[in-house]
Amino acid sequence: MKILKTQVGIIGAGPAGLTLALLLRKQGIKSVILENRSREYVQARVRAGLLEQNTVDIYKSLGVADRLLREGHEHHGVYLSFDGKRIRIPFGELTGGRNITIYGQQEVVKDLTNEWIAGGGQIYFETPALKIEDFETNNPKIHFESEGEEGVLSCDFVAACDGFHGIGRKTLPPDTYKEYAITYPFSWLGILAHVAPSTDELIYAYHERGFALHSLRSEKISRLYLQVNNDDNIDNWSDERIWEELAIRLGTEGWTLKTGPIFEKSITPMRSFFIDNMQSGRLFLAGDAAHIVPPTGGKGLNLAVADVKHLADGLAAYYQKNAIEALDNYSKIALKRIWRAQDFSNFMTTLFHKQDEHGSFTYQLQKAKFDYIHVSNAYATTIAENYVGLPFAAFE
Amino acid sequence: MKILKTQVGIIGAGPAGLTLALLLRKQGIKSVILENRSREYVQARVRAGLLEQNTVDIYKSLGVADRLLREGHEHHGVYLSFDGKRIRIPFGELTGGRNITIYGQQEVVKDLTNEWIAGGGQIYFETPALKIEDFETNNPKIHFESEGEEGVLSCDFVAACDGFHGIGRKTLPPDTYKEYAITYPFSWLGILAHVAPSTDELIYAYHERGFALHSLRSEKISRLYLQVNNDDNIDNWSDERIWEELAIRLGTEGWTLKTGPIFEKSITPMRSFFIDNMQSGRLFLAGDAAHIVPPTGGKGLNLAVADVKHLADGLAAYYQKNAIEALDNYSKIALKRIWRAQDFSNFMTTLFHKQDEHGSFTYQLQKAKFDYIHVSNAYATTIAENYVGLPFAAFE
Repeated sequence: MKILKTQVGIIGAGPAGLTLALLLRKQGIKSVILENRSREYVQARVRAGLLEQNTVDIYKSLGVADRLLREGHEHHGVYLSFDGKRIRIPFGELTGGRNITIYGQQEVVKDLTNEWIAGGGQIYFETPALKIEDFETNNPKIHFESEGEEGVLSCDFVAACDGFHGIGRKTLPPDTYKEYAITYPFSWLGILAHVAPSTDELIYAYHERGFALHSLRSEKISRLYLQVNNDDNIDNWSDERIWEELAIRLGTEGWTLKTGPIFEKSITPMRSFFIDNMQSGRLFLAGDAAHIVPPTGGKGLNLAVADVKHLADGLAAYYQKNAIEALDNYSKIALKRIWRAQDFSNFMTTLFHKQDEHGSFTYQLQKAKFDYIHVSNAYATTIAENYVGLPFAAFE
Repeated sequence: MKILKTQVGIIGAGPAGLTLALLLRKQGIKSVILENRSREYVQARVRAGLLEQNTVDIYKSLGVADRLLREGHEHHGVYLSFDGKRIRIPFGELTGGRNITIYGQQEVVKDLTNEWIAGGGQIYFETPALKIEDFETNNPKIHFESEGEEGVLSCDFVAACDGFHGIGRKTLPPDTYKEYAITYPFSWLGILAHVAPSTDELIYAYHERGFALHSLRSEKISRLYLQVNNDDNIDNWSDERIWEELAIRLGTEGWTLKTGPIFEKSITPMRSFFIDNMQSGRLFLAGDAAHIVPPTGGKGLNLAVADVKHLADGLAAYYQKNAIEALDNYSKIALKRIWRAQDFSNFMTTLFHKQDEHGSFTYQLQKAKFDYIHVSNAYATTIAENYVGLPFAAFE
């Protein structure tokens, strides 16, 4: 049996686990990462690609932002379209210079993994965590399996950054938290295509045929989405039909959607999930382990990074000043942002998706909100500040 | 048969009709008002009591604001309470000095009626309008009944300011408009009581037992509301129970609710209604004839006044410059504000009413919105600017 020992045992080498490890290293706190999947798998996993200002700032402070700043694309605004009328929310002017950066999550994971390993960090791939024990004591243990052999990672604290299906949340005593979940009555058909983007910034569109989103990936690859029914099937969607539908829904006068070969397409349900307590004893949850937001607001990865920022602050206070308050308050602080993100994601989702018959009362309220964006600088600012992410100081 | 002749025939002597008559007089345009009810009835009818800045400004410009400014109470903010935590939205700072004035609708109606009659205005009480004819021609006619006798008011234009149940909307050709309506799954139990208000500004409260509102009427009379189920009965609510419930729902640390004899209590369903076209030929609808908003945002009277402001502008352009465009665009311009008010009323209603189990996902989103008010000056501003009413210029 393999026996490992560290200060903070981290389960999961996604953005949450890796960012936590690097934040802790900066504070002189040791950690070990256990990851279920292979390095290749994790680094190829296509997920989010929208980094908030806070996230970029944290990566800069960790010295892992060189490639992100070079290859990523800073966006200073977003386009919102309703019934074919397109307007722009300028982030910088409305938020005092805060912006977003488009950079794929798999690229973030590559950069963080390289940095962690280059600095001598311990990370075990293809090493599933099986069980978390003794987290109500000062010496919790993570049982794992590596190369067919069982092992134990003995630590002071456990950070479960192991995603929605991980063992972290399942280990949290059921009487310590409540679950909140909604499933939206529609799904996203998402595609990746070999074609240059037809826009310099994201386009969110309400159309009487449903929502569409033109997202970006790189100069040569575009990512686009269509609202479909939950019972729809990807087989109903030929590439031709997808492009036609995207062109209609995203369309506005004088604009043309470029098309190209689609190399990935899938349908994903839209849902929100969170729990109202993310810790018990010396076990802490972060990222998707504790919350899922619909992708509409681009908040998933950024919430994970914000969680571990708070967790790292708490652990640093503990190791450096023997102060336990920040750790005790971890869930409370993290949840303020999570609730905000849930509400904003819900807002963006309900504003731009077809929820009821086109022309219904619900539609008129959606249209009234969209029209209000022109009228009110304050309203446009609420969208901008949520989209780029509220500063950490806002929730203190 | 009585034959009357004027330029603008106005049906209804509520705030819409009276304000329109005075606005037209200022432009040298003649009008005659027909009112179904007696003068005593109309002036005693207790309705809204919240005047937006725009409304006060219009009454000042008409020279009918002396008593309003003397006896009304200008409020520079509103209290919002959630789970017993009370915060204040300061209107002036957030909107560049715009405020609201608390002054009963029946007092407005008295002032306007006095002014109209003092200036020689024609107004026929207890004179129901029976039929509107020939509004697709240049000479529409309003058939009415007065003292048992039939009569006709011959005019250039008809302004139907005759409320939700009036003949105006029924006369509009069915193929010219679409109706939008929602009924909320709760009602308001409203009381008037002989007691000084326990607050200097209105208090809107979400509580796990339901919504409550402390409104104001005068130094000696208070108006308060409780959310109840649609199938509740006023007989279930003793005065004692009402005061107990109000104290719980409105409560916050260190604050006491004063109680007193209740002299009016009733239950009113909460609903929204509007039509998407308010005119046909030379017939124009204004106020409750065309839209009902839930009372949560205090918008009803103010929308009526905004409607007739646009209508008076259109009629003035017609009579003075023979320009028809403004009249043709009346519905379009009025509807921008109406849609905004519907959305804001819906926002205030859903934010502060119990919609789902306390602690549900919906509750958490409501709480997230409330918490966001502290965090964001922009968000607080959106509430303030909608509450005091957006300037006319905003929708041009």
